[in-house]
Amino acid sequence: MRLDLTTDLVTLLQAITDVESVSGNERQLADMVEEALSAHDHLEVRRDGDCVIALTHFGRQQRVVIAGHLDTVPIANNLPSSLEETPEGLHVVGRGTCDMKGGVAVQLKLAAELTDATRDITWLFYDHEEVGAELNGLKRLADNSPELLEADFAVLMEPTDATIEGGCQGTCRIRITVPGRAAHSARSWLGVNAIHGLSDVLDRLNAYEARDVDVEGLTYREGLNAVLVSGGVAGNVIPPSCDIDINYRFAPDKEPQDAIAELARVFDGYGFEVTDMSPGARPGLDQEIAQDFVASVGATPRPKYGWTDVARFSALGIPAVNYGPADPSLAHTDNEYCPADQLDTCADGLRRWLTIEQEA
Amino acid sequence: MRLDLTTDLVTLLQAITDVESVSGNERQLADMVEEALSAHDHLEVRRDGDCVIALTHFGRQQRVVIAGHLDTVPIANNLPSSLEETPEGLHVVGRGTCDMKGGVAVQLKLAAELTDATRDITWLFYDHEEVGAELNGLKRLADNSPELLEADFAVLMEPTDATIEGGCQGTCRIRITVPGRAAHSARSWLGVNAIHGLSDVLDRLNAYEARDVDVEGLTYREGLNAVLVSGGVAGNVIPPSCDIDINYRFAPDKEPQDAIAELARVFDGYGFEVTDMSPGARPGLDQEIAQDFVASVGATPRPKYGWTDVARFSALGIPAVNYGPADPSLAHTDNEYCPADQLDTCADGLRRWLTIEQEA
Repeated sequence: MRLDLTTDLVTLLQAITDVESVSGNERQLADMVEEALSAHDHLEVRRDGDCVIALTHFGRQQRVVIAGHLDTVPIANNLPSSLEETPEGLHVVGRGTCDMKGGVAVQLKLAAELTDATRDITWLFYDHEEVGAELNGLKRLADNSPELLEADFAVLMEPTDATIEGGCQGTCRIRITVPGRAAHSARSWLGVNAIHGLSDVLDRLNAYEARDVDVEGLTYREGLNAVLVSGGVAGNVIPPSCDIDINYRFAPDKEPQDAIAELARVFDGYGFEVTDMSPGARPGLDQEIAQDFVASVGATPRPKYGWTDVARFSALGIPAVNYGPADPSLAHTDNEYCPADQLDTCADGLRRWLTIEQEA
Repeated sequence: MRLDLTTDLVTLLQAITDVESVSGNERQLADMVEEALSAHDHLEVRRDGDCVIALTHFGRQQRVVIAGHLDTVPIANNLPSSLEETPEGLHVVGRGTCDMKGGVAVQLKLAAELTDATRDITWLFYDHEEVGAELNGLKRLADNSPELLEADFAVLMEPTDATIEGGCQGTCRIRITVPGRAAHSARSWLGVNAIHGLSDVLDRLNAYEARDVDVEGLTYREGLNAVLVSGGVAGNVIPPSCDIDINYRFAPDKEPQDAIAELARVFDGYGFEVTDMSPGARPGLDQEIAQDFVASVGATPRPKYGWTDVARFSALGIPAVNYGPADPSLAHTDNEYCPADQLDTCADGLRRWLTIEQEA
């Protein structure tokens, strides 16, 4: 089957949804995307694994990346897709419709349609977003061919309910091991109970006042939370140690070392291991190209709390925002769907932004 | 090989130690014990699975049970046994020498030797003590043939460093599940963190003042301790629940329902599940037969903190104490041993008690 990029967005979304592309199985869909885009003379199409890149060469002053991933989480009896008429309008239902083939459908349609945009565009379709970072297609591309990602601004078409979500918070995980000393629990006074010792760590967590941080006009709400705890060895032994994993979500005004310093302050007196660190990304809304984008799209930007691949663009020095159809809270749910009207909203927003005349 | 019950205690201990009898594999040793005891006309020998019972019928007013288990924990490159000369005297080294073939050797020697004691004796050698209670040979016997356990007093020859350890504390385990509500950890304010909620339970544990309880002249030290904790589902999810297992060791003045009531008082407001309950056992030292025993043995009784099978006798209404050679803190260690002099001490103590003339 060959993708028809001139059809309506609902039909196009159903067509790409029905090609199952759970992470690791993107090949067929990537082939179809590559073939469909290659039919257009205004696009230079490149391929890296199951990542497809289509570049325009209009000779514009600015270049923007518009990116989306082709893979989905595993299906849950929710393919093939279906259409549902609801009081709120038509829904396209099925695995990936929300996260994020709705955004991919918008990309494909505009990639074919915009034969003469006012900005050069790098359309990016990548693999392995829903699995470990070491497999992530965007990371691979940034490592192998960073020149293909060069741009003044990036839009990641993750679901945002068709509004703009700027930047993303950083996330860091640490593990604190509270020490104790084993003893038979019938003679507990000969030991030191590590689980009882955990109380001090929990007191600090409960007393912590998370910041609300303004970054470029967006208010990010931080959080410091225990996410996992485990301790003890048997029902008759005083626990010799107890591990607690703590997740710190920090606003993008902080660099990783600032986040570590804050954790060292809160848990003064404890050693800890940093088990995960993903820097945040500034929204970049202070830049003119971003302001153009906001004006064209006509939405009020809000902060992105969760971590997304916009941080990879940020790490390359490219301001990036999330903007795509569908409710992000439906991502990965068995009943995920994409409202048809949001497909149009996003296509219209991008179309306006990519065709307005720029000042010389 | 036939056991020679007339030989010295060190030789006898080595002989039975070198017959490996890890729980579930007691058959060969039980056969040897049965055969050796059956050679003595003053003993009526019975068998139940791998439990061997030898009863005297001297027609005395009182009957005592003297019990030991034949099984050991798994070997750890510590068989066959060896002898070690140390500044403190001769040690018999190897799996089971401490827990509790030293006691079994004393039992076997005296069972053969005491052809005319002043009390009738039920010598009991049982299986499956080191594993789950459902397999325990003493429990099986109490269920199947309680008449074989009828007695005025019982001595369990678990290692006590050749002193008397009276009764045993009860032990109870409960599980408290602290509730929460899951949310993405980037939006923690939408959830309720169950691990943070654990803090209140730990505060109560840390504030708890365990009692010292005098029971029949022995001071039992209670304890209330968290032994296991686990909570959380993933590194990016606010934990929806957290389980904490708490072990309560209570003095034998408390019945199980008293222990539960105390836990309900301490953890008022929390539901909990009782995952384990083993009642304690009073030392029974207020009885004349026990006082005779203490006087004969010539040791100052001390409380037993850990739970042992004396509680099974207690549940049958039979006062029971622990009394056996070797240091109990060496039980289950790879380098367990039994001091030769304690074999003699225990044999002498029991011999005195079982041969003194009783008042009419």
